[in-house]
Amino acid sequence: MFLKNCWYVAAWDHELIDGRMLARTLLEQRVLLYRGDSGQVVALADRCCHRGAPLHLGRREGDCVRCMYHGLKFDPSGKCVQIPGQDVIPPKLGVRSYPVVLRDHLVWIWMGDPERANPDDILDYPFLRSPQWKGVPDYLHYKANYLLIVDNLSDFAHLAFVHTHTLGGSEDYAYKTRPVAIERLERGFRVERWHMDAPPPPFHRKVIPDPQQNVDRRNIGHMHIPGVFFLESLFAPAGSGAEKGHLQGAREYRNCQFMTPETRRTTHFFWNYLNNFEGEDHNISRSLHQSLIEGFMEDKHIIEAQQQILDEDPEFKMLAVAADAPLSHFRWTLDKLIRQEQEGTRPVAPGARQPDPATAGAAA
Amino acid sequence: MFLKNCWYVAAWDHELIDGRMLARTLLEQRVLLYRGDSGQVVALADRCCHRGAPLHLGRREGDCVRCMYHGLKFDPSGKCVQIPGQDVIPPKLGVRSYPVVLRDHLVWIWMGDPERANPDDILDYPFLRSPQWKGVPDYLHYKANYLLIVDNLSDFAHLAFVHTHTLGGSEDYAYKTRPVAIERLERGFRVERWHMDAPPPPFHRKVIPDPQQNVDRRNIGHMHIPGVFFLESLFAPAGSGAEKGHLQGAREYRNCQFMTPETRRTTHFFWNYLNNFEGEDHNISRSLHQSLIEGFMEDKHIIEAQQQILDEDPEFKMLAVAADAPLSHFRWTLDKLIRQEQEGTRPVAPGARQPDPATAGAAA
Amino acid sequence: MFLKNCWYVAAWDHELIDGRMLARTLLEQRVLLYRGDSGQVVALADRCCHRGAPLHLGRREGDCVRCMYHGLKFDPSGKCVQIPGQDVIPPKLGVRSYPVVLRDHLVWIWMGDPERANPDDILDYPFLRSPQWKGVPDYLHYKANYLLIVDNLSDFAHLAFVHTHTLGGSEDYAYKTRPVAIERLERGFRVERWHMDAPPPPFHRKVIPDPQQNVDRRNIGHMHIPGVFFLESLFAPAGSGAEKGHLQGAREYRNCQFMTPETRRTTHFFWNYLNNFEGEDHNISRSLHQSLIEGFMEDKHIIEAQQQILDEDPEFKMLAVAADAPLSHFRWTLDKLIRQEQEGTRPVAPGARQPDPATAGAAA
Repeated sequence: MFLKNCWYVAAWDHELIDGRMLARTLLEQRVLLYRGDSGQVVALADRCCHRGAPLHLGRREGDCVRCMYHGLKFDPSGKCVQIPGQDVIPPKLGVRSYPVVLRDHLVWIWMGDPERANPDDILDYPFLRSPQWKGVPDYLHYKANYLLIVDNLSDFAHLAFVHTHTLGGSEDYAYKTRPVAIERLERGFRVERWHMDAPPPPFHRKVIPDPQQNVDRRNIGHMHIPGVFFLESLFAPAGSGAEKGHLQGAREYRNCQFMTPETRRTTHFFWNYLNNFEGEDHNISRSLHQSLIEGFMEDKHIIEAQQQILDEDPEFKMLAVAADAPLSHFRWTLDKLIRQEQEGTRPVAPGARQPDPATAGAAA
Repeated sequence: MFLKNCWYVAAWDHELIDGRMLARTLLEQRVLLYRGDSGQVVALADRCCHRGAPLHLGRREGDCVRCMYHGLKFDPSGKCVQIPGQDVIPPKLGVRSYPVVLRDHLVWIWMGDPERANPDDILDYPFLRSPQWKGVPDYLHYKANYLLIVDNLSDFAHLAFVHTHTLGGSEDYAYKTRPVAIERLERGFRVERWHMDAPPPPFHRKVIPDPQQNVDRRNIGHMHIPGVFFLESLFAPAGSGAEKGHLQGAREYRNCQFMTPETRRTTHFFWNYLNNFEGEDHNISRSLHQSLIEGFMEDKHIIEAQQQILDEDPEFKMLAVAADAPLSHFRWTLDKLIRQEQEGTRPVAPGARQPDPATAGAAA
Repeated sequence: MFLKNCWYVAAWDHELIDGRMLARTLLEQRVLLYRGDSGQVVALADRCCHRGAPLHLGRREGDCVRCMYHGLKFDPSGKCVQIPGQDVIPPKLGVRSYPVVLRDHLVWIWMGDPERANPDDILDYPFLRSPQWKGVPDYLHYKANYLLIVDNLSDFAHLAFVHTHTLGGSEDYAYKTRPVAIERLERGFRVERWHMDAPPPPFHRKVIPDPQQNVDRRNIGHMHIPGVFFLESLFAPAGSGAEKGHLQGAREYRNCQFMTPETRRTTHFFWNYLNNFEGEDHNISRSLHQSLIEGFMEDKHIIEAQQQILDEDPEFKMLAVAADAPLSHFRWTLDKLIRQEQEGTRPVAPGARQPDPATAGAAA
């Protein structure tokens, strides 16, 4: 049901500070995440192999964890290294460990065959490590399947109706604009859409010096398997020629959203909305952070309602409209990869790379 | 599981004022109810045919509704009449609409084959439109199958035990009285029961000038398929000859209760308890309204407990006592109609009509 | 799934005072418990045979109970003795009654074949009736299968990790001590464990005059089918020779815990922690009572988490360590008895008897 041989985001690094033992269900498996004394991030099955007690109620000891029911101790590889009151430890006694990589403040985890876990396959988002891009990393929990969130992000027209007064700005967005390009990628899609000469949408209006001036707006979205969305947004003074590459006076955003299935009906949603123009004024990040939460709550409201409706009637068949081409491609691709994985065929190598932030993020 | 080709009450008309979009599950189907600008009551499947978003989160536009996820617009027949950003609309794109009729403050809905929906088959209750009968229309939600409420109303003996201190008055009602008539009807039953020379029950005592005087009490209940209960109650001074038709000094009530399945385990319960003697003193209606709620809460408590018990053990077989004849007939009749409906046989035509209120409701 | 032909604890006698109608689910059956006017304890199926209404919402009349839905009345044997408004009562009409025995403040119930119910088979715990042993009887509800609590009590090593700062005292208990004896009994097991020359654990330290002095600690636990635990604890001054039978200056506890399945996932837990040294100072009982609740909450926290984990993955196989010998024997024995019961073989007679309290409970 889930693609397993790929990298998912398991946590932001700040969720593991102060020795926290983070219990998190990922792809319907209970995982315990923590950083050992050495700094190493450890991911183990959150279930003692002895009597099934949860290890997150245990105690971290160096890079190891001790179950606080009967005292069994496990090292970062999951191997049992101590049983109080017993001298011999069966060599195979232990819990599953998962490959994890800490990169650019994200903890990535590999839920499939550890042999295939190659950190080079982790999707790269350089804006998260670039000092010129600022934002507030955050997390939301969704009571909905992660693909409903992928769907949501696949059609920008929803900005007009779900987010009229927040992220969208007006219903014109749905009527007057269309995608100028929809590209089917090997592991996802790319969509580009322009909206010329319109008032800036509310979230942008709050952080710019001249909120009355009309803007030309460009959104470029990339969706990647298994559920990672990168959005480049550009707002330029209306008529300044942004569509021809004149970016004088433009402001840009980089938005990353990582959807990781908790269960088939719930999702971990990690995100950051970065700007490259705030300088030292962190209130711009804070304003954008608040605006985005407001917008995400609008999505969450309708998507969770949608999940309930789908749960009630498994017979219901959705009907596609023209704008569903990207999401149809995404689901088709993902289904194929899952099928290949289950049949034992090696999936195609991921390779989506982002451009360099120094050149890509032209600032105002 | 439910009889579909018949009229159910979906709402009181006051539930649709101020443009309210009423989301209500009926027979396990999500329905959106609203009144359009023209005054027309519209009932549509509360699920957009595109991605399954709930239409009740949408926006009413005239007599139409627009889904506020991607902006599809539907007319009162359920046909999709606009897709923002798309010029051609597939002719079959749309959602299901249900026949509805607004009559005497009740919204009736037909959940089965629309071809068979004949408004002449709607059960008539003239007391709801007669100016001499006054009451407060109300609604209760039950966590129980609607037939458990039908059962409850089939044996007035429960008045003695469930409602001793509210609607019943004393346990004598169960010991000293018996139905004088039980009539099996083609689509329901009629029960008549007298209780002679007893103190008035508490709910009645509160609204009469001489609460110390004993009364002769007559209850006549009609239960109709699918779950509609009409009760005529008469209280006459004890010994005044009401049983011989002398109604001098009698006071009467007309009580209607409409049980509509929400799911197989929950029920919408619409009711009104009408009197014909309050004149302009609306406090009598209000007192009766409060007394009835008190009594219904007693029913609800035991019926919902009963539902839980039945859910726990599907093997449990109830044992009938003599007083169960009416409910047995009702369930047998309903089962037969459902079976015929599922086999495609046309059910017998409903035709239960109430007498004219002008002659039927002889007042004090 | 449960052993039925054996005695379980259904309640403490104080739960039935003041005419209380106690509704309690036992082995997934709803049972109503009450004491009649004669003093007799009655246990009936808590479901009227007529329409399934719960009898605990009914009314006690002498030793009988009346269903307050339609008024059917049942005697202590479950036989229906009155149907209001009906002269003839079918002779088989009635509800199931269960054999119950009130002994030493415990209400024991037999959920299986009543023919086989022999009060002589009830496990005897004389300390509950001995005036020299004092304690506070209490009850906890567990959201876990009762066998997980049996498991918990089977390995005292958990004292070191779960109860380090309450009932255990230190982690040394797990590292420095081992059971000196594990006896497999026909219907349970016996475990004895000593911990020499250690500081008294917190719960004991609070009720003794010299909390600084080290103690020699002996625990002897008996676990009996179906889930009854008796624990004898002894604390003697370190080096006083308690292990050779010199009990001068020793203090003792008798702890009984009765685990009765409510459902396969929930448990009634009755317990009393008795001491023989408080004399008239009831604050010692109260202090021990509070300490034990504190400790039990630690157990409950981890055992309920364990239940959730086991529920999530029925495929999970626990791995036994050496200390699991007693619980493995217990589960093997219980499984065998359940299998024999389901195949119709008569189970072996229970016969676990406790020693006489006058000789067994040597006091300080």
